[in-house]
Amino acid sequence: MEVVNVELGERAYPIYVGAGILGELGKRLAETRSGKRVAVVTNSTIANLYLGPTVTALVGAGFDPAIIQIPDGEEHKNLAWLAFVYDRLIDAGIDRGGAVIALGGGVVGDLTGFAAATYLRGVACVQVPTTLLAQIDASIGGKTGINHAAGKNLLGAFKQPRFVLSDVECLLTLPQREYVAGLAEVIKTGAILDADLFALLEEELPALLEQDRDLMVRVVRRCAQLKAIVVSEDETEGDYRAILNFGHTLGHAIESLTEYTTFLHGEAVAIGMVAAVRVSRRLGFCDDQTVERVTRLVERCGLPMEIPGDLRREALALAMRTDKKALGGTIKFVCLEAIGRTKFERLTCEDIVRYV
Amino acid sequence: MEVVNVELGERAYPIYVGAGILGELGKRLAETRSGKRVAVVTNSTIANLYLGPTVTALVGAGFDPAIIQIPDGEEHKNLAWLAFVYDRLIDAGIDRGGAVIALGGGVVGDLTGFAAATYLRGVACVQVPTTLLAQIDASIGGKTGINHAAGKNLLGAFKQPRFVLSDVECLLTLPQREYVAGLAEVIKTGAILDADLFALLEEELPALLEQDRDLMVRVVRRCAQLKAIVVSEDETEGDYRAILNFGHTLGHAIESLTEYTTFLHGEAVAIGMVAAVRVSRRLGFCDDQTVERVTRLVERCGLPMEIPGDLRREALALAMRTDKKALGGTIKFVCLEAIGRTKFERLTCEDIVRYV
Repeated sequence: MEVVNVELGERAYPIYVGAGILGELGKRLAETRSGKRVAVVTNSTIANLYLGPTVTALVGAGFDPAIIQIPDGEEHKNLAWLAFVYDRLIDAGIDRGGAVIALGGGVVGDLTGFAAATYLRGVACVQVPTTLLAQIDASIGGKTGINHAAGKNLLGAFKQPRFVLSDVECLLTLPQREYVAGLAEVIKTGAILDADLFALLEEELPALLEQDRDLMVRVVRRCAQLKAIVVSEDETEGDYRAILNFGHTLGHAIESLTEYTTFLHGEAVAIGMVAAVRVSRRLGFCDDQTVERVTRLVERCGLPMEIPGDLRREALALAMRTDKKALGGTIKFVCLEAIGRTKFERLTCEDIVRYV
Repeated sequence: MEVVNVELGERAYPIYVGAGILGELGKRLAETRSGKRVAVVTNSTIANLYLGPTVTALVGAGFDPAIIQIPDGEEHKNLAWLAFVYDRLIDAGIDRGGAVIALGGGVVGDLTGFAAATYLRGVACVQVPTTLLAQIDASIGGKTGINHAAGKNLLGAFKQPRFVLSDVECLLTLPQREYVAGLAEVIKTGAILDADLFALLEEELPALLEQDRDLMVRVVRRCAQLKAIVVSEDETEGDYRAILNFGHTLGHAIESLTEYTTFLHGEAVAIGMVAAVRVSRRLGFCDDQTVERVTRLVERCGLPMEIPGDLRREALALAMRTDKKALGGTIKFVCLEAIGRTKFERLTCEDIVRYV
């Protein structure tokens, strides 16, 4: 088992990464001196696969877990299901000494984290991400929240977990499409922060697509480490942390306009990254080879690359304007200068859609 | 204008206290370098009285305020009205550079603070409390939240405001009953923290009941100062801050069992304080004179003192058990040792109702 530490002073916490480590959950939770009554929030799909071993691990360490199940899917990351989780936490008698465990992907993690941040003004939270996307990104850094009809993640809080436990064996049961969508965020991490990781992906992509366990542990650990460094630098996205939004400005707009039904988050981000590197090129920040390398790696994964033809540019600009990161009509857009190097550029939403 | 500083490191902020200082709001907000687009959340009653001067003050300082109006009353401090405020903030185009101003009593302040804590994962919040209760207690210290059918303030977050502006002239239009209810928290503050303040109340109660302005400024400033010290010591109620719950354990249970319709918060706290000092006496922590002084001051205000006869003791115990502060069936109960001195005692809910 590998351990990555997120350095955040009194809110510091470890990320455990390994293959077949879900059984350690109870032991790790016991180390945090949580109360015995805890809640596991998960969805029906994940429950079928991993609720058994999760509960076994918790009960084996002396915990009394209540199970809270929400439906699978991004469309349930909303205020109504948050209210449902609040009700169940109250019914289960979770008190301030208890802990809430998010077992699932980004939707479960974000919604559960937000519930833990606001239930009784905050109880301990543990993230057990079961998708690649959640393991390398969503579970780390404390961003939690829910969607609003007007946009993604418009409501939320910063809530650092007590720890994150990422078992790459959970990824073996992921639908291939979802696993590949997660690779988009791996590519993003390499593109903005680590030329060596990016080169490793170019080299080892076939083995990664075939889910070689050692390689998955290596990649998840490295991505977690990089994200941990960014988060430690800038916990609440004052400035630097915004580099993680590479590909996300357009990605979010595309997801919102297609009502979260056409693309998985990672797929939308893949399109957004290809667009963002093109914008970077148009602004003269990077060379053709950088565009080519990002585009090629996205393509080799089989990820989508182009903005759907039926999405009007005006609609995209409007969707970006209501993004919570838009300030006075402009956006701090993340450009690439080279693989592993970024640059912020403040652009109007109209400029962005013109340049892609 | 008096200034009390809440020392909380990077979350430190000033509390401005004075008579006739509402017109300063825009100037003070401009000092925080807030964006121009801001929102004022208030209720219909307060809007009739103070929205005009508030908007004038904001517009005069160059701000463009959106107005969000919720109905008056504790029963609206819930998830449905929180959702309403979220919707209006989005409609108004409030972005991360904006600020949300709570103009009203504790309900408006708590709900608005929670909205500000969670809208876009947090925007700046300003508290302009217009009730005595809110000026000396609710607006200070960053506790925000909403009620749940299962109990008061079960959902919420810690969110320190940018500043608090308390104009005691707003208290002149308060219904007498509400003003007097606020005095219960003034008595509480003296009883747990400051024998001199308590003695001042015993001395000057008639003038305070007649709303002498200088005396109100003096009392509000002193209460704000004392609360600020407690909050600085223990921002998130790890331990010490819990002394502020004196009278509240039973107070909350009484409010909950009477469905928030029979008593104002301060009235329930008055009953709770009389009960708590009796519990303290029964446990041998304080003398008869302490019981007498607290009881007498509550009585002179015309505040209720006795638990309604139709509330069954078992129901009270059960209501306390679902309080978010209950841990494993026991409560860290705040007892008085003397005027100005407290002691925590861990009691079961059954013990508490037996001793009152």
